Amino acid sequence: MNDMPEAGGREQRRGREARRAARSARSAVSVPYITRNLPITEVLSEEGLSIIEHNAETLMEEIGIEFRDYPSALERLRQAGCDVRGERVHFPRGLARQLVSTVPSDYVQHARNPERSVHIGGRNTVFAPVYGSPFVHDLDQGRRYGTIEDFRNFVKLAYQSPYMHHSGGTVCEPVDLPVNKRHLDMVYAHMRFSDKPFMGSVTHPDRAQDTVSMAEILFGKDFIQSNTVVTSLINANSPMVWDATMLGAAEVYARNNQACIITPFILSGAMSPVTVAGTLTQVLAEVLAGVSFLQLVRPGAPAIFGTFVSTLSMQSGAPTFGTPEAALAIYGAAQLARRYKMPFRTGGSLCASKVPDAQAAYESAQTLIPTVHAGANFVLHAAGWMEGGLASSYEKFVMDCDQLGMMHVLARGIDLSENGQGMAAFREVPPGGHFLGCGHTQANFETAFYRSSVADNNSVEQWMAEGSKDAAQRANGLWKKMLADYVAPDIDPGIDEALNDFMARRKASMPDATH
Amino acid sequence: MNDMPEAGGREQRRGREARRAARSARSAVSVPYITRNLPITEVLSEEGLSIIEHNAETLMEEIGIEFRDYPSALERLRQAGCDVRGERVHFPRGLARQLVSTVPSDYVQHARNPERSVHIGGRNTVFAPVYGSPFVHDLDQGRRYGTIEDFRNFVKLAYQSPYMHHSGGTVCEPVDLPVNKRHLDMVYAHMRFSDKPFMGSVTHPDRAQDTVSMAEILFGKDFIQSNTVVTSLINANSPMVWDATMLGAAEVYARNNQACIITPFILSGAMSPVTVAGTLTQVLAEVLAGVSFLQLVRPGAPAIFGTFVSTLSMQSGAPTFGTPEAALAIYGAAQLARRYKMPFRTGGSLCASKVPDAQAAYESAQTLIPTVHAGANFVLHAAGWMEGGLASSYEKFVMDCDQLGMMHVLARGIDLSENGQGMAAFREVPPGGHFLGCGHTQANFETAFYRSSVADNNSVEQWMAEGSKDAAQRANGLWKKMLADYVAPDIDPGIDEALNDFMARRKASMPDATH
Repeated sequence: MNDMPEAGGREQRRGREARRAARSARSAVSVPYITRNLPITEVLSEEGLSIIEHNAETLMEEIGIEFRDYPSALERLRQAGCDVRGERVHFPRGLARQLVSTVPSDYVQHARNPERSVHIGGRNTVFAPVYGSPFVHDLDQGRRYGTIEDFRNFVKLAYQSPYMHHSGGTVCEPVDLPVNKRHLDMVYAHMRFSDKPFMGSVTHPDRAQDTVSMAEILFGKDFIQSNTVVTSLINANSPMVWDATMLGAAEVYARNNQACIITPFILSGAMSPVTVAGTLTQVLAEVLAGVSFLQLVRPGAPAIFGTFVSTLSMQSGAPTFGTPEAALAIYGAAQLARRYKMPFRTGGSLCASKVPDAQAAYESAQTLIPTVHAGANFVLHAAGWMEGGLASSYEKFVMDCDQLGMMHVLARGIDLSENGQGMAAFREVPPGGHFLGCGHTQANFETAFYRSSVADNNSVEQWMAEGSKDAAQRANGLWKKMLADYVAPDIDPGIDEALNDFMARRKASMPDATH
Repeated sequence: MNDMPEAGGREQRRGREARRAARSARSAVSVPYITRNLPITEVLSEEGLSIIEHNAETLMEEIGIEFRDYPSALERLRQAGCDVRGERVHFPRGLARQLVSTVPSDYVQHARNPERSVHIGGRNTVFAPVYGSPFVHDLDQGRRYGTIEDFRNFVKLAYQSPYMHHSGGTVCEPVDLPVNKRHLDMVYAHMRFSDKPFMGSVTHPDRAQDTVSMAEILFGKDFIQSNTVVTSLINANSPMVWDATMLGAAEVYARNNQACIITPFILSGAMSPVTVAGTLTQVLAEVLAGVSFLQLVRPGAPAIFGTFVSTLSMQSGAPTFGTPEAALAIYGAAQLARRYKMPFRTGGSLCASKVPDAQAAYESAQTLIPTVHAGANFVLHAAGWMEGGLASSYEKFVMDCDQLGMMHVLARGIDLSENGQGMAAFREVPPGGHFLGCGHTQANFETAFYRSSVADNNSVEQWMAEGSKDAAQRANGLWKKMLADYVAPDIDPGIDEALNDFMARRKASMPDATH
């Protein structure tokens, strides 16, 4: 893959280098993505993986996967060797494995700032914000419908966090804008208010095409045909259905060499069997079917093996998050993705809680830690998700980002360098002594431990003197400060004008309907 | 090891069997301890482990470990081959490894109710409550000094939780009782208000002896000489000091075949080098020195490789919890313990927060999940720890116990039985269908997913109708209900009288001093 050509003359480059140096000095952990040095946790044996794989192929062969309202997909799959009966596609054993073998095991998603480009796959992990919430929540105004201002705020917060690698997609639904036009404002917000990589619209093939057209303006038409600059979220209609909206959007992206996250979205017990192994079987079948289609559109188009699995309350039927069954599904699905040599997306900081309280934090940690230990490559909903995905929370966004910072340190593993071994410290400090003042500690003072922005570690007396604030109340102050401190990244005025012209023309061509 | 003889005649046994059956029916996951089916997560390679081991032996040989104010320990270690200079003990390379080789790789700690006995070591995990807090905290009364009533309450809550395997030790400090007598009331509370296994006093060798004497009354003198009925917490005075109080208590327990958790208690950066590898080196050296002493007292005395490692805020010097460096230390220490074939203690649900908020939950989960993934065998502070161990929290106790319940499910791993594979469900439900009503789901309805007692998964409307309570407020109602529902386990009246007589005699023999 080509690197993005660096624009600008010598002076611009010098300015860029100075800024880069300043950034490096400011934070040792501000990296464009995580490259893990930590062994991966696996929960399934080779035998277990073989059982699930065998069962998934049985499912695809005997029961089949439906491709609804999209005859060209049926035709492509028939020509590839599937047995198509109506809209039900039966895959002969082994065919899907062969079709998905052209998926790149990793790819670079370019950002308009080359320092922000992310490498998706292998030992790398990329964090992206909450996606898809119709509501937003903060401590001041409570829960309310999201607006384009909220949308821009979450883009700005993601841009500000050194631990968020990606600008994401629908960071909240801007309900104040017409449904048929809002994708333009959303894509523009990512392009204008951040320089991190982003996701495109998937709610209609035309909106996917608008995303590609705007990316052509931002990156150049030639560049995007040989480089990936958008990664978009394509969800299955589980169980075992792919629908025309998603397939149509996916086809636009694949045709243009842009990446899709092919994701079964499953609440186990309702949309899949009530067991982890059964759910993983279905995940594998749905991913293989969706990715097979993508590879028939354009062999080699980048694709991510996606998995969103959570559970149900069997008493009330409500979705539940941060459960141990969901954690096991995260680990198992990651193993399946590696088996097919595809980049893997799962997890995040998921919770059912209505407020950023202890439930929100327990459940988020119970999702995020398995996500990292499983070796996920792309982590949507890494910050801000609340109320089962119905609300994007300002406070939770900054609390979660702090947890993402910790995951950067965890993923580095244990430093076994001479300095890391610390034998020099022992030669300075006798038994019963104190390490705080020793030379080895002083030399490592700045970078020794991750510094949380949210946690209060002071004495109870000092904490009370500062207002006895809980974590959410402290986070309330933090996101306001981040927004107040926000400075938009530079953008070429000509490109900005072209983007705005494109949006104006597109909007003028659309009806005023809001649905 | 002998099993505890079952007391009582046929009728008592029948009653016991009926109760056992009722318990099994009530909760499938109420087990005396976890036997994990989940692979262990490791962070260090063989090379990394060798480096740390080599460095620890260098520390023990060149710098040495101090055994303070305890000449008999120095004499034992000298006779075993150590080079003793003053109170500094230098271990020739390889000696400690040889001395600790007599530690049993696992042991049974018997409870007075044989169904509650725990197996410590191997693939087993035992959860025990918070230990050592001078304060208690609840939402009604806030933070205050602990009393014996609080102590009994935490014993009762631990007894009530199906996910807490052990009654623990100093579940809070009963500050209303004289320092020199309170150990009697604490040990009695564990014996009388619970039938789970417990820990003994370690604040003076005489108090350890009182614990052993009371255990002799409860279990029978012969029984305890060939069986372990107490596991007690022996902390190093890090860095690299063992003091007379702890050594004296440990000697009493080891002499009586009772178990000790030999634990470096380290805030990295103050009491050890500021790096994880350096801290692990010190942990290993301190454990090997302490356990060597124990094995010289009584070869084969049960001992646990303990590790309590957290970090410091490098700005304020305050202890910090749930940090990624602490997680890495948990994983690394577990690997070291397995290398020496010793049961391993670490972790818990640690946090610095002053209230049971999101910080408390994030930090606790960031400690507990690594603890479980690392394969810890004994988990002190598994529930109730707050404010860096200064306060035992009622609300957090029940919130943490709920998390422990989830860890039971996680540790079982993925069920790959025919039922677990769930292929029957797929044959019932077509693509686009719904699994909730299918036969496979109905057959697995009761046990399918872990049911949280604390989480609220309802709609925001229902949650508001129920008072918009956060997790801590819901937990407030839960612990009150648990205490209201508490029924003390039966105890033989003769044994109870003998325990009370013993305490009365011991108290009468002690001065009235409160220190």
